[in-house]
Amino acid sequence: MLKKIGVIGLGTVGQEVLATLKRNSSLIKRRTSLDIAVHKVCDVKRTKGKIAKKFSIPFTTDPYSIINDPEIDIVVELIGGIEPAYTLIKTSLQNKKSIVTANKALLAKQGRLIFNLAAQKGVSVGFEASVCGAIPIIKGVSEGLVGCEVDKIFGILNGTANYILYKMEKEHISFERSLSQAQAKGLAEQDPSLDVEGGDTLHKLCILIYLCYGVWPSLSKVYTEGIAGISLQDILYAQELNYRIKLLAIAKKEKKSLDLRVHPVMVPAGHPLSGVSLAYNAVTLHTHPAGELLFFGEGAGGVPTSSSVVSDIVNIASGNKAFARKEENIKLTDFNEVKNQYYFRCMVQDQPGVLAQISRIFASSKISISYVNQKMRNRGKHVPLIMITHEAREKEMKKALQEIDKLSMVQSPSQLIRIEKI
Amino acid sequence: MLKKIGVIGLGTVGQEVLATLKRNSSLIKRRTSLDIAVHKVCDVKRTKGKIAKKFSIPFTTDPYSIINDPEIDIVVELIGGIEPAYTLIKTSLQNKKSIVTANKALLAKQGRLIFNLAAQKGVSVGFEASVCGAIPIIKGVSEGLVGCEVDKIFGILNGTANYILYKMEKEHISFERSLSQAQAKGLAEQDPSLDVEGGDTLHKLCILIYLCYGVWPSLSKVYTEGIAGISLQDILYAQELNYRIKLLAIAKKEKKSLDLRVHPVMVPAGHPLSGVSLAYNAVTLHTHPAGELLFFGEGAGGVPTSSSVVSDIVNIASGNKAFARKEENIKLTDFNEVKNQYYFRCMVQDQPGVLAQISRIFASSKISISYVNQKMRNRGKHVPLIMITHEAREKEMKKALQEIDKLSMVQSPSQLIRIEKI
Repeated sequence: MLKKIGVIGLGTVGQEVLATLKRNSSLIKRRTSLDIAVHKVCDVKRTKGKIAKKFSIPFTTDPYSIINDPEIDIVVELIGGIEPAYTLIKTSLQNKKSIVTANKALLAKQGRLIFNLAAQKGVSVGFEASVCGAIPIIKGVSEGLVGCEVDKIFGILNGTANYILYKMEKEHISFERSLSQAQAKGLAEQDPSLDVEGGDTLHKLCILIYLCYGVWPSLSKVYTEGIAGISLQDILYAQELNYRIKLLAIAKKEKKSLDLRVHPVMVPAGHPLSGVSLAYNAVTLHTHPAGELLFFGEGAGGVPTSSSVVSDIVNIASGNKAFARKEENIKLTDFNEVKNQYYFRCMVQDQPGVLAQISRIFASSKISISYVNQKMRNRGKHVPLIMITHEAREKEMKKALQEIDKLSMVQSPSQLIRIEKI
Repeated sequence: MLKKIGVIGLGTVGQEVLATLKRNSSLIKRRTSLDIAVHKVCDVKRTKGKIAKKFSIPFTTDPYSIINDPEIDIVVELIGGIEPAYTLIKTSLQNKKSIVTANKALLAKQGRLIFNLAAQKGVSVGFEASVCGAIPIIKGVSEGLVGCEVDKIFGILNGTANYILYKMEKEHISFERSLSQAQAKGLAEQDPSLDVEGGDTLHKLCILIYLCYGVWPSLSKVYTEGIAGISLQDILYAQELNYRIKLLAIAKKEKKSLDLRVHPVMVPAGHPLSGVSLAYNAVTLHTHPAGELLFFGEGAGGVPTSSSVVSDIVNIASGNKAFARKEENIKLTDFNEVKNQYYFRCMVQDQPGVLAQISRIFASSKISISYVNQKMRNRGKHVPLIMITHEAREKEMKKALQEIDKLSMVQSPSQLIRIEKI
């Protein structure tokens, strides 16, 4: 069976999709009896025409010549960003074409409208490439775990952030130095804010939440903290305490409420997520009845991600429909009410009475301490004081932190990293 | 949409399938708009009628009253073994009913016929539960990686064998003791041969091979060695050398040939597979373009496995078709010609000249040695001699082993464990 597709956007992923479809066309045909033909490709940059030429595919700079082409069944959107991607996807769906996209930012923001429009028009949205690059996590969760309740998700969903933290620990370098190295390697953008500040992780978390609970969380309501504040010393102290610091997407469901957040976490060194190196991604799901599951693989890069795009194209071309999830009656937990265990570090003047003052502030907020370590002596100068708390409520902890940071012997701001007993 | 199913076999998995379908029926409906109704259940044991009663489902001891019932769309076979399962599945397919099965032994032996018959009748075979219990590996590979070439597979596919090896290492106990403990915990059968001798791992490997290459390997042609010969001392020496011993299913594809085997492997301690504890399962796939992927989760047990059975039921009920894979032109590699690195241990009389004699035998087979360790001194008595070879051909290594085992100062049989640089 012949299926014609159009590809909009010839960046790294787009080019590799063409390469994979060409290289593996006979394999795909043997497995599925499908012939996938790329009917037309589009990029706003006229210079990309030479890529199209290499693959002998007609090229256009006008995306509408793809989304209005009656011969094309599936539109593959690989330009990213909100506009014009959103308008192009909407128009494609209105034209009753299925779409395949890797655009997590757009789905996180407009997923509800996109999926509703697709359902209304009876076409599909393939988005395997939008979360964890090459890992078939969308299919795994939406179809493989279709009969499961998901109680908890812990995910390393951003390869760039993981790479930066991994290299800081491995090479004992600062955040800034590690970021520059990632940029030099093409693993981080010139403006790295989406990766480093947690926004990209949040987008992917929202997509997983849609799969598990049918709801699209409002982005501004999910606590999101990036890794720019993580210092090498905290990474090394975490290591001493047998933890690794990872940027995690977290979801915990309890009855009708959902605790969602993105922030750096101290993960116990024995847990598989602590061992995720370089720019790899991994997701742990706690489910019932399937138990604990872990998916691991390449989270980004044109070559690996092309696998997910091609899988979506083939699955949609074969006529298989994804399930249209309905909203679960569920509310986001207020982050201020969430309980966590904390790693707390402040730089204090090395003089008697400091610990007493800080302990008194914690005690008055009813936060109890399980571990204290004053790292070195350096009379009169600032030295690190490390504390680990028992479980405490976020709002109490923040209040205590504010008071501590006001103390004259404390060099603010103090550091707070949440510990998860995964 | 209402879909009626019949369940044959009310063992642990069957019971948990009924429980999951009941508990999660509204969740399944919200996600898929499907109502899955269990129309009838069957078990040869009349006493199981009380389970059916608990779920208010009509009960029969006659499987034909399910597979000949025109109201039933999907037959779920959970009795295991070859007969009568094979006849029941064939008859169901002939009656144009889709089937869902967890029966790896049957699929490994008769998969070709079963899938051909299903294709001919235009119905589906769901078999997610046949490999790695709760892990959605069948869907992940067959659909998620549909556009990928798979170059290598390394899998811990048998939870019982992994549990036995894990406990031997953890508690410093013998194989026999660890097996009895697994039996006492209900993790190993009274006749543990399928788990312990590698047969079950082989069955699951064959199913993965079908998914990746469309071929059903002949079971007798795949080298299969179990874990009964693994002694505690080898586990401890492996640990000293920074390895863990795991029972692995291995596939390596090179051009048109496929190297398949099941045997204990020394896995480098840093590799994720080395950390798979208890009765968990895990599979690593090396693919192009998706790169390296790892799936981890519960490999057995009624509760987790019910997730995969339910996922198959729902996916088939929704009308989605699995891809019908066609055979790749591929040949099994002769195991004698395969090259491996080896851990070799023999018990030798502690007297001068032993190492010289053994080394001479290796040298005459052109096997070079990278590491030698004579573990202790005990003049006149037998002491362990550990050697690690460079890569050598299986047939040369076996020949050398035979010669070494004939030496009067060697207490045969010697131990050989293959090392994989995963």
